[in-house]
Amino acid sequence: MRNLLKEIIEKIKNSKSFLITAHVSLEGDALGSELATYALLRKLKKRVVIYNNDHTPPIYKFLPHSGVIKNVLKEDKFDVAIVLDCSDSSRTGRVKDYLARAKCIINIDHHISNTFFGDINLVDSKASSACQILYRLCDKIEIMDKNIALCLYTGIFTDTGNFTYTNTTKETHRIVANLMHYGVSPRLIYENVHSLCEDKDLKLIGKIISHLKFDASRRICWAIINKWKDKDYDLTEVIFSIMRLLKNVEVLILFKKVDKNKIRVNFRSRPTVDVNRIAQFFGGGGHKSASGTTIEGELAQAERKVISFVKRYTNKLK
Amino acid sequence: MRNLLKEIIEKIKNSKSFLITAHVSLEGDALGSELATYALLRKLKKRVVIYNNDHTPPIYKFLPHSGVIKNVLKEDKFDVAIVLDCSDSSRTGRVKDYLARAKCIINIDHHISNTFFGDINLVDSKASSACQILYRLCDKIEIMDKNIALCLYTGIFTDTGNFTYTNTTKETHRIVANLMHYGVSPRLIYENVHSLCEDKDLKLIGKIISHLKFDASRRICWAIINKWKDKDYDLTEVIFSIMRLLKNVEVLILFKKVDKNKIRVNFRSRPTVDVNRIAQFFGGGGHKSASGTTIEGELAQAERKVISFVKRYTNKLK
Repeated sequence: MRNLLKEIIEKIKNSKSFLITAHVSLEGDALGSELATYALLRKLKKRVVIYNNDHTPPIYKFLPHSGVIKNVLKEDKFDVAIVLDCSDSSRTGRVKDYLARAKCIINIDHHISNTFFGDINLVDSKASSACQILYRLCDKIEIMDKNIALCLYTGIFTDTGNFTYTNTTKETHRIVANLMHYGVSPRLIYENVHSLCEDKDLKLIGKIISHLKFDASRRICWAIINKWKDKDYDLTEVIFSIMRLLKNVEVLILFKKVDKNKIRVNFRSRPTVDVNRIAQFFGGGGHKSASGTTIEGELAQAERKVISFVKRYTNKLK
Repeated sequence: MRNLLKEIIEKIKNSKSFLITAHVSLEGDALGSELATYALLRKLKKRVVIYNNDHTPPIYKFLPHSGVIKNVLKEDKFDVAIVLDCSDSSRTGRVKDYLARAKCIINIDHHISNTFFGDINLVDSKASSACQILYRLCDKIEIMDKNIALCLYTGIFTDTGNFTYTNTTKETHRIVANLMHYGVSPRLIYENVHSLCEDKDLKLIGKIISHLKFDASRRICWAIINKWKDKDYDLTEVIFSIMRLLKNVEVLILFKKVDKNKIRVNFRSRPTVDVNRIAQFFGGGGHKSASGTTIEGELAQAERKVISFVKRYTNKLK
């Protein structure tokens, strides 16, 4: 049996220049695993570049070395490309062109849909996060410090929904215990990732929540926002996190008027309902428990159409 | 130096009948530690009664053996009384009378204000929860099973705010890793404890949030509830969990009119501010980052007094 950790360590030790990347739509696990890998390789005195298709969301700029991440690239030759939290190389966006030019691709990921596109594929779909897998590498190579610990903690924390999703295991907590030994502050990371709302935004959210709508069965709940402006942080997630406090509701929907005649519709669900199928019906997509689509037309009309479909869809499941 | 764990184990082994209790206003750590102790003692074939001043909130009825908890008591003589998560014996309410009649009181707690009222006092204010301390006892006595693990997990999970408060340590995660070995489901416990809101309660909370008040510095934020009715679940925690989404706020306060001329005031804070000191000024108490008090008088007057004091107190800290 191949010892993948050993192979990766050998490859790292025998190589000089590294390209690090992750998937488009960067979040905690993508950025945490990239920056932990960066800090690890810098400790080994390697030449390292992090190159991403997308810009770093402001809420993750507290992560150490986040300033080194590039969105344009001059160099184009690397000994090794390390691709993190990516099910497929095309999920790296325009970085894909650079991957082909690296002598070796190391693919470190936890998606069940991973296509094993690397020369070395360290893939474990049972791991909560890419950061959880990366910890095993740091542990084996015996390199850890406060910065690496903070990055790994952030990836694990965000991908497990604060250690509450079903992907949270004994290993997850054991790793986090070890990371905390290096002085990681859970409170600080929580506040950086979650405590982001401006006063007036939270008041607006309060108003939206006070006008929630429900179907007769109380299994479907939706909120409507007449004027939507994108923020530095993700208000959609904040609103859903509050709607999740509801008992027994199975489908959560958010209608946002993003432009004249343009309605963005987001869906979230408990495991009983596949909202990917619902979004697909309206030309969108996503995951089983989180999806979205954009509908042309008036807000009231979009609401009527979607709710009527969701009612029929959930009734069929009974 | 006294070996308290050893003393407690000796005392347990040499005694036959036990009374278990905890503080009034039962929550996750009080009930989790009571029911874990119950399961532990039952495994040792002891006679055990859990007797509480208050009724068990319905949201905690998923805890194993929660049905055995009594609110009236026939027996009145016990070899040992084990008091959990209680800073002072008077915090047990009317159970206090029974404590005096026990041959020995074991006090297991993590409040910094603990008065060491027991014959054996296993008190550690650095522990996240009574459950975290109780784990050490279970570990020493080498008794653990799924039920005990579920109770201890619940107490630790609720008292650390899902592992995000500053009381969360390396030991906390190490213990939780060990508890998960016994098949604890974090998702299930999360939903039992958090996804509880009735439609109309969440709408009311939305209205409260839409009327949040702030001081000029935006460091203090408070909410006011004109009519408060105790619910099956803790709306106070739900409201604070939403207020915690605010950026840069250091003190969160909730004013609830619980009765004519009776205002319950709850405080939560970021680490910069000790709200135990603030609550103490108004005759209450609690922890550094979570405390409360009850003030006699009109709502507007209580608001004025408290906010004025908190402003002066936080200004002094600058």
